[in-house]
Amino acid sequence: MPRDLSVFGGTANLPLAEAIARALGVRLGARVVERFPDGEVEVRLEEGVRGHHVYLVQPTTPPVNDNLVELLLLADACRRAAAERVIAIVPYFGYARSDRRHGSRAAVGARVVADLMEAVGVAEVITLDLHTPQVEGFFRVPVDGLSALPLLADAARERLTSDAVVVAPDAGRVKMATAYAQWLRTPLVVLHKRRDSSTRTSVTHLVGDVRGKQCLVIDDLISTGGTIADSARALHDAGARPGVLVAATHALMLGDAAEKMRRAGVSCVLTTDTIACRAPDDGFVHTVSVAGMVAAAIRED
Amino acid sequence: MPRDLSVFGGTANLPLAEAIARALGVRLGARVVERFPDGEVEVRLEEGVRGHHVYLVQPTTPPVNDNLVELLLLADACRRAAAERVIAIVPYFGYARSDRRHGSRAAVGARVVADLMEAVGVAEVITLDLHTPQVEGFFRVPVDGLSALPLLADAARERLTSDAVVVAPDAGRVKMATAYAQWLRTPLVVLHKRRDSSTRTSVTHLVGDVRGKQCLVIDDLISTGGTIADSARALHDAGARPGVLVAATHALMLGDAAEKMRRAGVSCVLTTDTIACRAPDDGFVHTVSVAGMVAAAIRED
Amino acid sequence: MPRDLSVFGGTANLPLAEAIARALGVRLGARVVERFPDGEVEVRLEEGVRGHHVYLVQPTTPPVNDNLVELLLLADACRRAAAERVIAIVPYFGYARSDRRHGSRAAVGARVVADLMEAVGVAEVITLDLHTPQVEGFFRVPVDGLSALPLLADAARERLTSDAVVVAPDAGRVKMATAYAQWLRTPLVVLHKRRDSSTRTSVTHLVGDVRGKQCLVIDDLISTGGTIADSARALHDAGARPGVLVAATHALMLGDAAEKMRRAGVSCVLTTDTIACRAPDDGFVHTVSVAGMVAAAIRED
Amino acid sequence: MPRDLSVFGGTANLPLAEAIARALGVRLGARVVERFPDGEVEVRLEEGVRGHHVYLVQPTTPPVNDNLVELLLLADACRRAAAERVIAIVPYFGYARSDRRHGSRAAVGARVVADLMEAVGVAEVITLDLHTPQVEGFFRVPVDGLSALPLLADAARERLTSDAVVVAPDAGRVKMATAYAQWLRTPLVVLHKRRDSSTRTSVTHLVGDVRGKQCLVIDDLISTGGTIADSARALHDAGARPGVLVAATHALMLGDAAEKMRRAGVSCVLTTDTIACRAPDDGFVHTVSVAGMVAAAIRED
Amino acid sequence: MPRDLSVFGGTANLPLAEAIARALGVRLGARVVERFPDGEVEVRLEEGVRGHHVYLVQPTTPPVNDNLVELLLLADACRRAAAERVIAIVPYFGYARSDRRHGSRAAVGARVVADLMEAVGVAEVITLDLHTPQVEGFFRVPVDGLSALPLLADAARERLTSDAVVVAPDAGRVKMATAYAQWLRTPLVVLHKRRDSSTRTSVTHLVGDVRGKQCLVIDDLISTGGTIADSARALHDAGARPGVLVAATHALMLGDAAEKMRRAGVSCVLTTDTIACRAPDDGFVHTVSVAGMVAAAIRED
Amino acid sequence: MPRDLSVFGGTANLPLAEAIARALGVRLGARVVERFPDGEVEVRLEEGVRGHHVYLVQPTTPPVNDNLVELLLLADACRRAAAERVIAIVPYFGYARSDRRHGSRAAVGARVVADLMEAVGVAEVITLDLHTPQVEGFFRVPVDGLSALPLLADAARERLTSDAVVVAPDAGRVKMATAYAQWLRTPLVVLHKRRDSSTRTSVTHLVGDVRGKQCLVIDDLISTGGTIADSARALHDAGARPGVLVAATHALMLGDAAEKMRRAGVSCVLTTDTIACRAPDDGFVHTVSVAGMVAAAIRED
Repeated sequence: MPRDLSVFGGTANLPLAEAIARALGVRLGARVVERFPDGEVEVRLEEGVRGHHVYLVQPTTPPVNDNLVELLLLADACRRAAAERVIAIVPYFGYARSDRRHGSRAAVGARVVADLMEAVGVAEVITLDLHTPQVEGFFRVPVDGLSALPLLADAARERLTSDAVVVAPDAGRVKMATAYAQWLRTPLVVLHKRRDSSTRTSVTHLVGDVRGKQCLVIDDLISTGGTIADSARALHDAGARPGVLVAATHALMLGDAAEKMRRAGVSCVLTTDTIACRAPDDGFVHTVSVAGMVAAAIRED
Repeated sequence: MPRDLSVFGGTANLPLAEAIARALGVRLGARVVERFPDGEVEVRLEEGVRGHHVYLVQPTTPPVNDNLVELLLLADACRRAAAERVIAIVPYFGYARSDRRHGSRAAVGARVVADLMEAVGVAEVITLDLHTPQVEGFFRVPVDGLSALPLLADAARERLTSDAVVVAPDAGRVKMATAYAQWLRTPLVVLHKRRDSSTRTSVTHLVGDVRGKQCLVIDDLISTGGTIADSARALHDAGARPGVLVAATHALMLGDAAEKMRRAGVSCVLTTDTIACRAPDDGFVHTVSVAGMVAAAIRED
Repeated sequence: MPRDLSVFGGTANLPLAEAIARALGVRLGARVVERFPDGEVEVRLEEGVRGHHVYLVQPTTPPVNDNLVELLLLADACRRAAAERVIAIVPYFGYARSDRRHGSRAAVGARVVADLMEAVGVAEVITLDLHTPQVEGFFRVPVDGLSALPLLADAARERLTSDAVVVAPDAGRVKMATAYAQWLRTPLVVLHKRRDSSTRTSVTHLVGDVRGKQCLVIDDLISTGGTIADSARALHDAGARPGVLVAATHALMLGDAAEKMRRAGVSCVLTTDTIACRAPDDGFVHTVSVAGMVAAAIRED
Repeated sequence: MPRDLSVFGGTANLPLAEAIARALGVRLGARVVERFPDGEVEVRLEEGVRGHHVYLVQPTTPPVNDNLVELLLLADACRRAAAERVIAIVPYFGYARSDRRHGSRAAVGARVVADLMEAVGVAEVITLDLHTPQVEGFFRVPVDGLSALPLLADAARERLTSDAVVVAPDAGRVKMATAYAQWLRTPLVVLHKRRDSSTRTSVTHLVGDVRGKQCLVIDDLISTGGTIADSARALHDAGARPGVLVAATHALMLGDAAEKMRRAGVSCVLTTDTIACRAPDDGFVHTVSVAGMVAAAIRED
Repeated sequence: MPRDLSVFGGTANLPLAEAIARALGVRLGARVVERFPDGEVEVRLEEGVRGHHVYLVQPTTPPVNDNLVELLLLADACRRAAAERVIAIVPYFGYARSDRRHGSRAAVGARVVADLMEAVGVAEVITLDLHTPQVEGFFRVPVDGLSALPLLADAARERLTSDAVVVAPDAGRVKMATAYAQWLRTPLVVLHKRRDSSTRTSVTHLVGDVRGKQCLVIDDLISTGGTIADSARALHDAGARPGVLVAATHALMLGDAAEKMRRAGVSCVLTTDTIACRAPDDGFVHTVSVAGMVAAAIRED
Repeated sequence: MPRDLSVFGGTANLPLAEAIARALGVRLGARVVERFPDGEVEVRLEEGVRGHHVYLVQPTTPPVNDNLVELLLLADACRRAAAERVIAIVPYFGYARSDRRHGSRAAVGARVVADLMEAVGVAEVITLDLHTPQVEGFFRVPVDGLSALPLLADAARERLTSDAVVVAPDAGRVKMATAYAQWLRTPLVVLHKRRDSSTRTSVTHLVGDVRGKQCLVIDDLISTGGTIADSARALHDAGARPGVLVAATHALMLGDAAEKMRRAGVSCVLTTDTIACRAPDDGFVHTVSVAGMVAAAIRED
């Protein structure tokens, strides 16, 4: 743990910033973040950081662009106040799914975000369960890519019966699903979508056997809950035991995501506090904290 | 005018983008800008730009961070599609007032914006009436800083009587006011605010003579209309002729700005279309277009 | 197609360089590549490139470090000879599998390669079927990521019966396999390896049904042939029809790779000429050329 | 205050460098600066700086280019000797008035200077009363912009009567003048020049009332004394009390500047030692030292 | 030769700039270079350069720092005026002898100069007979290193008898001397200095045989003429034929250099116009122009 | 000596890495360097380096490209593991002879190597007897250029008689030879090659007198031994005493270099351990270690 260490939180997830500071045994740094009537953000540190290692906790959750620019301004303020090293803790990394050009004349959003962070002097990034781990390579600076998998798999284990299977909701999640399956010693099932050339609609195909089995669908992110709901329906259609479990590191839970998943037969969602919670735990969503894991990464490594 | 030229508009001010393309005699480039449920933006050019000089028209008006990030993604898409040169036309430049640190541990927002644009490969910037012209120096790349002053001063001249004075609403606008006064051959009046140490409130001081005179208050930007309204009241208190004129390049007109100025005795506001108009011209606000001036800068220089 | 275009080939795959030049209707540029007794490489262009777009064809096949450094020196020579733009055509991209840190204190080899290319002024990269498409984002400069999938899938179609399935040899290839399956309208089968905690050996698991089916195992790269051979054996053990087909863009074919696959029951390998062929086509390996596809990318886009 | 700190002075203002070192309680570092017959400068540190924070004191006073290059060479020597951080203390910042392009095809001198300093590895700049504070934003690195205003205003207060006014000698100085007026609780007067279109000469206009008042003209810099002399004459013509006071942070005092101001009715000039004094204090010029303020900035922040 | 080409001269050697422009068949670009009373330089192009290849002719002769900064400002003005490519023609490259650290805590002046040029956007450099050719490698950008050797050797040949020898005046010039000797088919003689440990003075040692021979001493630069005069004396002491010839690309001729060499027995100095001539040709100094050679490098390569 | 210091060795010269670590009193860091069947290298540090100054010992001896890339990957691993400073100890610097373009369209190999090292974050370089000291200027970062001359000259002194001469084997080595001659107080002799225009072969010319003298030929590097063997023959032909001594910092000793030199009359070669020894000391080659000198540079400076 660096001698001169400061932790500041942006406005995106203050409870997590406080939990991390607490786990480190330090006080959260005082700062002002103002938003003008025209939407411009102004930031100001209220304590000196000269020569410090400054950790800025700011997941780039919605409103993603506002939170991103706020983080960039905080980093600039730190640099101009002569901090020795600015480390961005971005537990949820917005634009991570824009990890390649979708079409030949698109942008690579995640690389743009990496470039912006480096442009204002971010010297290191700590994040969790990037949509694709390769995003680490979009940065010149060190990226500490933590994983909530052990936390979530342990939480899942208590709820699983011996005949459970781990389900990848699409081709891109098969690697993560094999890791869960390895950890929990269960078989693997793969869902993948394919455009039906006659009807032009997308049909979910199932590879593997789920008849009578308890299903744990895993994902990195729950956004509107649509993919999970589709998966749950496809699993039930294929004979899976009612009551699908879900484990996902990041829970944006946009709109009526919870209701949508519940209606599709999901019985429980396991997730973390990388994104500031929008609702109290209610038995349906169960949240484990990553603060200790982040603090350990700062302290030990 | 470069041989292979493309003009694309972001979503911030499409009418201006179209007007500029029209003035250049070209078709506005096709592109897709999508906003996902979680607020992330995805952009895609629908025509090739390899080897082109691409002009991206996007004032960074509110929502400023969304429009800024959209511009950055468009620039990245152009660069990755092998455009030869990406020129950002940012008629209104958000964060321009953050041109120095206000307090010793703040950010320099305008420099951050410059760094971000250069980080994604913007090779030149065209803008109008920056809050301070020094912002040009925040860029390594060429900045073409146009001024709407001739357009607005000409529009003002028709409405002015021979005893008019030009009024700087604060110390920072004196330079711009002297340019208007020189152009219109009128005397100058300076307003400036000072904190009253006993009451801790800010009092407007007036330097110069306005008794019985027609006043033209100039500014670069009307945001909430508060500064202009204060100025109008101070001028009337000091005996100015009723019916203050206002000339300002950029009109954000946030909230009830128009109503606020009208109540304070402003009779007419002259402005331009750098910011997409929010209301029809109604006699109170009179708008002149900068499209021709921008097109000329692209074409001739 | 740029007006002033030159194509040079390094020593890694001259036949492909010549085929690309031929497809473009230009002569391959003259250059000298010397290797000193101590292994240092010296390069020298024998024709001027001032103001040219120079395309350097050099897959970074084994000896990978020699071929990489040769490419970097060629790019430096072009830049110092005042080429306007240096484009690296790297049909096979060495170190692409080092696309993230495997362990927390490793290097990201593919990002290092990207940094090296940009350090010597490479302004654009053309490549085929990167191990992970995200490697594109390791570059600031445009990356044109072509795919041999249409060529190989068409070549496979002629050899497939109606009951064929496409097989992903591991979790990382599921996305590519779904693309083949979509293109060929076949079901998908997934193999994935898992460490058996008791025996500490790695066991191949099969998800999906292959009994009596013809299998097409796809991959981006055949290195020693081990993964493919393991897959073929696992498929046959699970009842697949004898005679597994293989389609892979890049065929390093190290050591006795061909023999190894043949022994495991592979009947035919479809591949391309991204890597200079080490043996004549013999019925077992069937090669289709990517030269036309690369030339089209240069010419049209 | 960093543990390993060195202070070196260039040749531009050794007395100030010594005063700063003294105020910090350290010895000024030994170095050699040689000037060859052809004007080339050679610098050499005579003590090790590995791992040190090195402060280089060098205002870029005339001969400005020689002093600037000397500073750049010193910074390079520090960097190549493995200093951890090189901080340039540039109390007077030459080329600061070149803060924007004057004409569309000019250079931005102050940005060029910023680029040059960053090119040789200057990691932080400490300066005083920049001509425009926005020059801070020309740097990526932190700029500590101190102000001599409190020192000079206090020195002025003793000499002012209760009816004093603060005078801005041109439109660009109104902001600084309002700060003085706020500090000294006096009214404000603004001078500004305008070209007379008939005679093509520049005429000084006065805004505000000076009849019978004592005037304090403020400025950032006295170069040839021409602007100040013009101001004094204009004030006297408008009925100001004889004996104008002047306060300016930087006193280049080129040519017969002192005589010129004296003849125009200036009675006293208050300034600082940012520029090595060219003459002894003689009652006309009164100098206060900024060494303590600079040392405090190094020590405390 | 690029289509849109402009040539501007700084103030260091206008006759050469004009000669180069003339040789290219173009008009020298109009520009203003002003020097303020405080020594600051202001530059302004008086014609547009958007999209042009701009050649700036400015040897960095004494006053070297003024000429260097002038060149940097001109380059910045070109870049900000959107020139496509700025090429610095620096026929004599000041600080070239500072090509390594002399002592462990010195600067590498020539690398600093290279960094400064690149910092302001110089994209290519054309120069002649660098003190060490390795200085080319100090630049990322292309350096076209021309040599006046063929011009000077041809001029020397007319004046040489069949028994001439080429003399390297010190160890660092042996490579250049061998090139002259190869070109002129003469033997080589080497002078080198060594500190005499007893007297602490430097003694010139002569390697080779000069008895009765005509000597041609070659060098890249004549500064104060001291080295050449010492060489001539050492050669005469060793029995060389009276009347030493000298060939040197750059002739600074500081102070009484001509007289000093004449007194030491030099009969004729052959040089070029890389440095603006300070005196008319008088039989002692003979000047050949490099304008044609520079123009050819621009035109042909 | 930095507080947190780690020393790692690449695979190029582990004995030297161990000797340096021993001389510093530290343990050599544990790391894994794997080479895959396709020649790709994978590196992994097995101990943490966060906040450390990491010294990587890796001369870029043959196979030069493999060793270079291994060094670059090690540096990347250190940077991504958040080392504070990565220092490359490259005792023998491959590609150093490629210090300028040989021909106008070649690469500058040594600058490419410098760019590559800086691209992966090398912050300082320690090396010995660079082929030309100017290569130091190819780096932005500090280069500590040590010299084995004192070690080798002392070793030579014991073997020299009073009539010895120091011989430069070609024009480029005259500076190094004068340093040896100064240190050993001997005369100097210069060999240089010249193409004979009639026979087109290269002939060695000798400047100076060697009749009956003992000769010490010095060089920075012995590669194939050809240059040294040619020199020895030329010296004997000119009447030198039989039994030429050789001193060279780096001994690649490629192929039958030893035999070749022996046959040409070389009696003894003095060298260092910058390059891992390929053969035991046998009386012919005598090796002195530079480990102490490198350790001192780390410890003291």
